[in-house]
Amino acid sequence: MNGDKLRSVSEKTINRLSLYRRLLENRFGKGHEHVFSHELAELACVTPAQVRRDLMCVDNSGSTSRGYSVQELVREITAVLDAPGGQRIALVGVGNLGRAILSYFSGRRPGIAITAAFDSDPSLAGRVINGCRCHPMSELSEVLRGSEIGAAIVAVPASAAQDIADRLVAAGVRGILNFAPVPLKVPEGVFLEHRDMTMSLETVAFFARRSLGDAE
Amino acid sequence: MNGDKLRSVSEKTINRLSLYRRLLENRFGKGHEHVFSHELAELACVTPAQVRRDLMCVDNSGSTSRGYSVQELVREITAVLDAPGGQRIALVGVGNLGRAILSYFSGRRPGIAITAAFDSDPSLAGRVINGCRCHPMSELSEVLRGSEIGAAIVAVPASAAQDIADRLVAAGVRGILNFAPVPLKVPEGVFLEHRDMTMSLETVAFFARRSLGDAE
Repeated sequence: MNGDKLRSVSEKTINRLSLYRRLLENRFGKGHEHVFSHELAELACVTPAQVRRDLMCVDNSGSTSRGYSVQELVREITAVLDAPGGQRIALVGVGNLGRAILSYFSGRRPGIAITAAFDSDPSLAGRVINGCRCHPMSELSEVLRGSEIGAAIVAVPASAAQDIADRLVAAGVRGILNFAPVPLKVPEGVFLEHRDMTMSLETVAFFARRSLGDAE
Repeated sequence: MNGDKLRSVSEKTINRLSLYRRLLENRFGKGHEHVFSHELAELACVTPAQVRRDLMCVDNSGSTSRGYSVQELVREITAVLDAPGGQRIALVGVGNLGRAILSYFSGRRPGIAITAAFDSDPSLAGRVINGCRCHPMSELSEVLRGSEIGAAIVAVPASAAQDIADRLVAAGVRGILNFAPVPLKVPEGVFLEHRDMTMSLETVAFFARRSLGDAE
């Protein structure tokens, strides 16, 4: 980690650094050696001032005449976001959503790998899906304790989610990405992000309908 | 819609109403006729004052001695969130993530149905997946214009996402739930929610690592 500046960095800044890095890799990969904050801002749908504030925490000073070096910026964001040897993640719940998550992240980011999956369906035990081995749910604590896994994705039904979260935290997990349709309680010091797909879709449906109503 | 109170309702309030309704249905379904704001707040991981503020826009006064009627509250939230005859949604992109989304939402909410899917893979055309018919991408405008679909889910690769969003908006869609790993630009009046899974996972991984570093 990059010292004191990162101690107080916000979730939203980390969100945007993740986005900036992908935009830099995909949009400026070839033939672009430098990028101005307003160019990156345009792609990321934020203001140039926001880009400059966010990049202050990656130690890149940039240059007013030429902008930021794309390669340097990607390297510096990577130094903030990624663990030096890569980060291992667990997945709990290998149903439709869990499998889509395994497939989606397979090889997507060099710094992140889902290296262990768990499911209560005994027929999945021992199978390897998208390069990730599935374990019985009963082995969760044992597998995690012997690993370097510090973060996990929860993709189980609502009724099982809190129990799984408690077991993950007890096994040393300090970050949970929750796709189960229920809020989870975790102790202080454990980072929790809830991605409730039903909530997202109902909200989009509501505002679409209101907008259509307004237009009539 | 419920008149003036809903004109200025925030995205976060709609998010929470969606959550409250599911908690009421699942946790208070049987044997619970009434619920106090502090009970709902505890499950939703918000403050009781927040619950009371949110519920002010559903016309439910509640009672200080008995709390809210569960059945009445569910009915009133439904009157806010759901279209009277149900709401039809399109899905663009029937890859792994798109299929997981179809499976996840199949029968999950009575007020919402994904009724048309689109993909550039010609072998999917005409297939019915989880009750939803797949169409060729070339028929997107035609199918949407003849439908009552006002909202859509985008689950295509980053490179295709903006073009798809433009076509959806041109065909009358006013709400987009974007799972593509790139920000989209839409005209004013179109509601856009971006669910960037890479961003979510990189953020969880970052804070998990920081928390583990802090603990050492």
